[in-house]
Amino acid sequence: MKMKSFTPPKRLLMGPGPSDVHTRILNAMARQTIGHLDPAFIEMMDETKQMLKYAFITENELTMPISAPGSAGMEACFANLVEPGDKVIVCINGVFGTRMKENVIRVGGVAVIVNDDWGKPVDPEKVEQALIDNPDAKIVSFVHAETSTGAISDAKLLCEIANKHGCLNIVDAVTSLAGSELRVDDWGIDAIYSGSQKCLSAMPGLSPVSFSDRAIHKFTHRKTPVTSWFLDLNLVMGYWGKGAKRAYHHTAPVNTLYGLHESLVMLTEEGLENSWARHKKNHKHLRDGLSKLGIHYLVDESSRLPQLNSVFIPEESDDAKVRSSLMNDFNIEIGSGLGDLAGIIWRIGLMGHTSRKENVELCLSALQEAI
Amino acid sequence: MKMKSFTPPKRLLMGPGPSDVHTRILNAMARQTIGHLDPAFIEMMDETKQMLKYAFITENELTMPISAPGSAGMEACFANLVEPGDKVIVCINGVFGTRMKENVIRVGGVAVIVNDDWGKPVDPEKVEQALIDNPDAKIVSFVHAETSTGAISDAKLLCEIANKHGCLNIVDAVTSLAGSELRVDDWGIDAIYSGSQKCLSAMPGLSPVSFSDRAIHKFTHRKTPVTSWFLDLNLVMGYWGKGAKRAYHHTAPVNTLYGLHESLVMLTEEGLENSWARHKKNHKHLRDGLSKLGIHYLVDESSRLPQLNSVFIPEESDDAKVRSSLMNDFNIEIGSGLGDLAGIIWRIGLMGHTSRKENVELCLSALQEAI
Repeated sequence: MKMKSFTPPKRLLMGPGPSDVHTRILNAMARQTIGHLDPAFIEMMDETKQMLKYAFITENELTMPISAPGSAGMEACFANLVEPGDKVIVCINGVFGTRMKENVIRVGGVAVIVNDDWGKPVDPEKVEQALIDNPDAKIVSFVHAETSTGAISDAKLLCEIANKHGCLNIVDAVTSLAGSELRVDDWGIDAIYSGSQKCLSAMPGLSPVSFSDRAIHKFTHRKTPVTSWFLDLNLVMGYWGKGAKRAYHHTAPVNTLYGLHESLVMLTEEGLENSWARHKKNHKHLRDGLSKLGIHYLVDESSRLPQLNSVFIPEESDDAKVRSSLMNDFNIEIGSGLGDLAGIIWRIGLMGHTSRKENVELCLSALQEAI
Repeated sequence: MKMKSFTPPKRLLMGPGPSDVHTRILNAMARQTIGHLDPAFIEMMDETKQMLKYAFITENELTMPISAPGSAGMEACFANLVEPGDKVIVCINGVFGTRMKENVIRVGGVAVIVNDDWGKPVDPEKVEQALIDNPDAKIVSFVHAETSTGAISDAKLLCEIANKHGCLNIVDAVTSLAGSELRVDDWGIDAIYSGSQKCLSAMPGLSPVSFSDRAIHKFTHRKTPVTSWFLDLNLVMGYWGKGAKRAYHHTAPVNTLYGLHESLVMLTEEGLENSWARHKKNHKHLRDGLSKLGIHYLVDESSRLPQLNSVFIPEESDDAKVRSSLMNDFNIEIGSGLGDLAGIIWRIGLMGHTSRKENVELCLSALQEAI
């Protein structure tokens, strides 16, 4: 068999993730692999946890990356916190809310759905009503930043409502972490998961998570074992836990963790609030340019996610043709619509290292030609 | 917060994995991240599938890497193939057989255990007897190469027995793939999983798997959904499936897949059988040297795994002290004993890129000083 090494084409990643990865992070990935129980590696793990606490703004001891993509982070939250028969209020305003429902059902939970239009934020009043109607609900779950629509929901208020009704909450922060204001402790978040490949701008493959003491109490006191051995936090904790003593659970993705570590070092250098501000600033620049091109947003200004701009495909444009032209003529990848929004919107990502003024300008001038 | 980039120390990885990663593979990891639905990426996925078929010696269309470490590959096999109530013969002769049992139980299966001493291969007669005693068994599962003990079992014979009794089989090939003879189609293997970080010498984080048509039939005709959404092969197939059309399921770990692709290119360059032979040759060299040092093997010669040499800790040596000395004075990592064998054995890995004559010599001379 004759095979050649793979050389990826040059691309500017302006889709819903992965975002452009900085050379510093790519170089970190190429450092020599060492053992997952090497004392030097464990030190790096501790630094990673410390920096993730910084990024999530939390003192939660159980803050770490799951050794698999965001979907596995979602599953880690639901598989550990939902026991068979548990009633979970699931807010659906896009693809990832739908996926949450799937997760609840598959682990034997009962999902009570709060629906909102795709492109709208989760309606806190509906959530409150659902909790009044379902006093036996144990968990409220929602997506902070819906990657499929570009809408941001009021995570602080939704967690307040859940807490008031004695429920735990599970928050999807895949696209919000490091891109939008997010305060795990201040907002009373119990379980949260994100992805490495969005506003942290590391390569895909890891899912940072964090759990409050209440969440830990729930999964350490389960009546039935977690169906997933790989994601059972009772076991994962032994590897990512306190102190120098670590028990082997699975082999951590060593080099990918080097990359995440470097991306977090870069975040601490920039400063978390500066990162939020940069995402907002470049979003405004894009918004103004799109407006001049006559391209309209799906989401109302008040709940628009700066790092994910979902816009209606202009009537005169052919979806696939424009995206092909952007990729082939300009090396720019933008995202297509997902689920019900396929063929209706484009998703222009300004996440992490992609969120720079020159990229906004490149994208605008390419779009001007392609549409 | 002041944090510095991480620079791993120099190590020679002679433990149970990860093994040393070749510079070519490390460099591949550092190539620019592109989208997980980019046409160029999909071409690379197809090449990866093709080369994995070569490595497994199979025509199975569903041959691909799971986007998480070997433990998740194991879970993908059990979670998809075992339905609640299914009886599974689980052969236990080390840590990873025990983990298989955990997997069966957690997804609601009934595990019938066939025990063998740790360090011995699985006894085919006991497996046959278990099948006679349990005519309703649906699956036989065993570990081809037990990473915790260094024993290899007769996968061909065990699959024959399972097939004769109308059972599917699940085979753990984490440590055997590319290091020892393994023939998925010829041996009638139905479901198999491996790891990227052993004899393929790529970085940890991926689990190559392969499924026969019989196995696919089983999980496409389940009565109950797979409890894991992330590992549900009915969905994963849509992303790794046939042709150019791929549906988004999760975001693939793009750069880690570059690394696996490069490791497979290197395997095709060397030739699979040459790789097996190299592992055997360097093992013999190590064995002869250990014998001169008076160090004895746990496993009988007939079932010794060339890529994982488990040896008794000499009576006069202190386990932790010797391993520390190897790491601190010689930059060599060897493995400690796992589970019941902790404190009793060391595990010296000669996997993938680590399996070279100069490493054997370095290890022997370091051991001579350290013990």
